[in-house]
Amino acid sequence: MTLRQAQGDRDDFPAGTVWLVGAGPGDPELLTRKAERLIRSASVVFHDALVGPGVLDLAASGARLVHVGKRSGRHSKDQATIDRLIVEAALAGERVVRLKGGDPSIFGRSMEELNACRAAGVRARICPGITAASAAAASLGTSLTLRGFARKLVFVTAHACAGEALDLDWHSLADPMATLAIYMGKAAAGEVARALLAHGLPANTPVAIVENASLPSEQTLSTRLDLLPLAMLACAGTGPALLLIGTAMNHSPLAAAKMQGSDVHAFAEQAS
Amino acid sequence: MTLRQAQGDRDDFPAGTVWLVGAGPGDPELLTRKAERLIRSASVVFHDALVGPGVLDLAASGARLVHVGKRSGRHSKDQATIDRLIVEAALAGERVVRLKGGDPSIFGRSMEELNACRAAGVRARICPGITAASAAAASLGTSLTLRGFARKLVFVTAHACAGEALDLDWHSLADPMATLAIYMGKAAAGEVARALLAHGLPANTPVAIVENASLPSEQTLSTRLDLLPLAMLACAGTGPALLLIGTAMNHSPLAAAKMQGSDVHAFAEQAS
Repeated sequence: MTLRQAQGDRDDFPAGTVWLVGAGPGDPELLTRKAERLIRSASVVFHDALVGPGVLDLAASGARLVHVGKRSGRHSKDQATIDRLIVEAALAGERVVRLKGGDPSIFGRSMEELNACRAAGVRARICPGITAASAAAASLGTSLTLRGFARKLVFVTAHACAGEALDLDWHSLADPMATLAIYMGKAAAGEVARALLAHGLPANTPVAIVENASLPSEQTLSTRLDLLPLAMLACAGTGPALLLIGTAMNHSPLAAAKMQGSDVHAFAEQAS
Repeated sequence: MTLRQAQGDRDDFPAGTVWLVGAGPGDPELLTRKAERLIRSASVVFHDALVGPGVLDLAASGARLVHVGKRSGRHSKDQATIDRLIVEAALAGERVVRLKGGDPSIFGRSMEELNACRAAGVRARICPGITAASAAAASLGTSLTLRGFARKLVFVTAHACAGEALDLDWHSLADPMATLAIYMGKAAAGEVARALLAHGLPANTPVAIVENASLPSEQTLSTRLDLLPLAMLACAGTGPALLLIGTAMNHSPLAAAKMQGSDVHAFAEQAS
């Protein structure tokens, strides 16, 4: 394979090494400059389903792009396959980018891949990315923390194995002084709302639903906790959704302006 | 003022508008491509003390750079002054970048500035940035979340007003299944360790201290919760420090390799 050397190429990416690179939320402009350089320098890029075409377009013309997206229910087998593919490519002397949606260190299963590399004597490093919660807050025009009202920011994932209930500590999550960012929150939205209400979070706690944050297909919906299951019915998209729950979400003017499904909000106003 | 129009300039940054831009952890390569474009297009940049020279170098040659760093104990007065300066610049027809270390939506006091702009009829938007916890995890070569061991990621700030005790919910923070990221954690490290131990977090819970994440001056120290106050004595730097507490920190090979103050670690090994 002939691969032109990318302009920004440096000595932190020799042949036979691996970079786990955060692709950010989807908008190619929200890549870091470092991620851009590494993608341009890679000879092979292993990427998730969530990494968009605008990001992959940055790869060199001779680079191989390998889709290793996982499907629900077959995680463990697929993760082992991904680990093996990355290690084999590095041992074959490739410059490997493993491109992950968001930030590799936040719900990215990076540890499995780092450990596989290290066990094989392959050098693996991490380039951070913008996580979905930061991108969603930017789109909403709000802050995730708010002095005196939201002093704690909590990230959890609501992705459970098929058929299993979520195993989360709802008592500590139902904190009116926190902002709760729930990744992969779409399927479990009803369970999330019921559990938080049962553990004492007020019914009128504001909730923002952000689907495909930062992409042209982004959808934003503003509602309240007791109406969250109803509001999810208005989310027609198929992309990953982030739920942001807490008082700070009351301060988003864009949440109101961008709102889809205004009937849900009107109903919320009436009920309050 | 004559200001050359930056190459990447687009119609999302007309005169008289404000962008709150995340400068990331310090390394100019960890800026997003969007942040770079906005900084290059600004006619005035209001920046914190934590924003490094490599980032500010991207501003156009004719742009004004205004340092609005805050000092402990005089926050409220200074915040009002910053709000006023930003609004006045926008109303005077400038293209205003308000550059904040890390991500504007995470402990960035963005809401005050957004509200001030909106009250004055000035359009203000947010460009997200890499937050310190993501950068620190990348430097440590570890993940902040870990399936089955660290399913929750919690961000708090340990910056209290002078002389006041930290007002944090230690009971819910002392969760052995979480990773705790404590921003501005240096001064309060002793109080943090005592409170978490008192609320049941095991003495051998691993802790990483990361100062100046991503900068050439970065310092990383690996210890355990009961030894945290002792370990802080080995941190000679004056930069902001992030504490990462939880089982996931056990999986960082770089934490060991990069360690300063190995006597603290040796003592920890002996005691365990």
